[in-house]
Amino acid sequence: MKLDDLLKHTSEWLRGTGPKSNIVISSRVRLARNLDKKPFSNWANAKRQKEALTIIKAAVENTSYLKGALFVNMKNTDELDRHFLMERNLISKEHMANVENKAVVISDNEIVAIMINEEDHLRLQVIQSGFKLMEVWRMIDSIDQELSKYLSFAYSPRWGYLTSCPTNTGTGLRASCMLHLPALMLANQMDKVLDAVGKLGLTVRGLYGEGTQASGNFFQVSNQVTLGRSEEDIIDNIERVINQIVVREENMRNSFLKRNREMLSDRVFRAYGTLKSARIITSSETIKLLSAIRLGVDMGFIKDIDQRMVNELFILTQPAHLQKIDGKVLSPSERDARRADLIREKLIERKGKKR
Amino acid sequence: MKLDDLLKHTSEWLRGTGPKSNIVISSRVRLARNLDKKPFSNWANAKRQKEALTIIKAAVENTSYLKGALFVNMKNTDELDRHFLMERNLISKEHMANVENKAVVISDNEIVAIMINEEDHLRLQVIQSGFKLMEVWRMIDSIDQELSKYLSFAYSPRWGYLTSCPTNTGTGLRASCMLHLPALMLANQMDKVLDAVGKLGLTVRGLYGEGTQASGNFFQVSNQVTLGRSEEDIIDNIERVINQIVVREENMRNSFLKRNREMLSDRVFRAYGTLKSARIITSSETIKLLSAIRLGVDMGFIKDIDQRMVNELFILTQPAHLQKIDGKVLSPSERDARRADLIREKLIERKGKKR
Repeated sequence: MKLDDLLKHTSEWLRGTGPKSNIVISSRVRLARNLDKKPFSNWANAKRQKEALTIIKAAVENTSYLKGALFVNMKNTDELDRHFLMERNLISKEHMANVENKAVVISDNEIVAIMINEEDHLRLQVIQSGFKLMEVWRMIDSIDQELSKYLSFAYSPRWGYLTSCPTNTGTGLRASCMLHLPALMLANQMDKVLDAVGKLGLTVRGLYGEGTQASGNFFQVSNQVTLGRSEEDIIDNIERVINQIVVREENMRNSFLKRNREMLSDRVFRAYGTLKSARIITSSETIKLLSAIRLGVDMGFIKDIDQRMVNELFILTQPAHLQKIDGKVLSPSERDARRADLIREKLIERKGKKR
Repeated sequence: MKLDDLLKHTSEWLRGTGPKSNIVISSRVRLARNLDKKPFSNWANAKRQKEALTIIKAAVENTSYLKGALFVNMKNTDELDRHFLMERNLISKEHMANVENKAVVISDNEIVAIMINEEDHLRLQVIQSGFKLMEVWRMIDSIDQELSKYLSFAYSPRWGYLTSCPTNTGTGLRASCMLHLPALMLANQMDKVLDAVGKLGLTVRGLYGEGTQASGNFFQVSNQVTLGRSEEDIIDNIERVINQIVVREENMRNSFLKRNREMLSDRVFRAYGTLKSARIITSSETIKLLSAIRLGVDMGFIKDIDQRMVNELFILTQPAHLQKIDGKVLSPSERDARRADLIREKLIERKGKKR
């Protein structure tokens, strides 16, 4: 498999399947791990970084979940590749710079990804469609256990797993769900929700993690605390909180359906009409409109496309994806035109099929 | 013919035919006339008003252009009928109040309309599609001449035709064209045009004449001076000015096509997409969007509908028309939903036909 082959299929987490996938797009867990008695990646010189990379690569290649996985040396990627990987949630922003000894390993269907020499030696990630954090946790836990057969991780009996940044120390675990909350937004209830979520030790971010804004009614909810609690406790806590948010969103959707059906269908169909008509469209407008049609599909207003198509469009319409599809660098205004074309192709072609 | 029969056909002036009909929607001339030695309508008591009405009705019924015309006693109309007539440009706002002895006579295809007992005893109007003021003038002139065989008009050798309001005295003539100037608006050139037009003794108004705002890039250009010049001079002057505006608008459209084709097609198709998708839409948004698709049809972006369809939608989507079509009074929010339905029916049904 080559990097560009990723374009040919849909990441598992975009398939729109799994429990509550109308509201919970994806569930993700990541673990931060470091090699014992080796300097953290950011403190290591090139030689020590390379050493860590070699050791980890060998271990990863032996791991059953990662047979046949794509191994990407970051130094062999260009700017566009890196943005492409970030848009697919496979690497962090930090992983795009100083790439000399960085790598990312990507499993089939992109369910598992391991960044090597990010701020920690290993950043394991498992991401899947729908609301199933516990399942995702069990999967990453077994990968972690398998890896620990080949690698000795930095671990203190008192503190737990040691990490480059102290906020990750302990379990090294960050669990998150990507939520789509258009009804709570429309009802101006999100401030209340965010407030409650904060008090419960969770934090809310935008589409691309730390430092990004929520847009198009998408929110990433994750745990803040990694220390002093067991992994299953952390997962259980975040699952319970998210479950409450999901119930609130569902109730609000039903209440809108009962009381503002016409207003809602107007919004949905206008968004759909604009996406099928525009000849120039920015990325941020696209996200907003896709958010509306995602709601429309869930509520049964739009019947000729499915969630998977909507989820795919979120990813495909991003700047690096557009350029990868075209196989060349595009200026921002070229991208806005290309994006509009792509959306029309997808929505109108799909409509022709009438699945 | 009954009043409601008007709904069954399209007024001639909406057909989108005639010279320069891509820019000049319609050409209209009206003449103000009063009976000699009878008090002006506004000064007359009910008895004298009725007398004038009777005399004029008899004359009109003898006029060849008005054989088989619809004679509407305004007192037999309800609020909705009156708004309906106004939306079709057949009566003025003033003609909607104090209707006791008022009437309107409407020819086949609505080319000729005569208001009786508006501020003048007679207000003759001829309106046709496209840019042909001189033709329209000749037609109204011959109706006027025929009427003057049966009626004696108030006329002073010094001042010309006497009218209730001195601004109409002389020829009693107001000639106007309804222009669609989206490119000049988009290029921010309209202030310059309006300024020039004002200096040439012409005045610019919105869709429904005096006191209405220009909306959706529609402008009604008419003469201000009625006195001291011959009718043909007045017509000739306004034709020349409008011709210049038309040339400017054409040039601007061509320049946009060359330099901003993509931006323009984006605007046009978004408007078209919204009209085919919305479930709730106000009258003013409708006018703006129809303006964009009218431009799109003219520029060849939109191929599956024609100007006539666009022109018809302008009229059919107005409040009184919507209620006439449904045969009942609708609240503003019911109208917004009904309007959206009607537009979708028309645009999608028409598309099915693929003319």
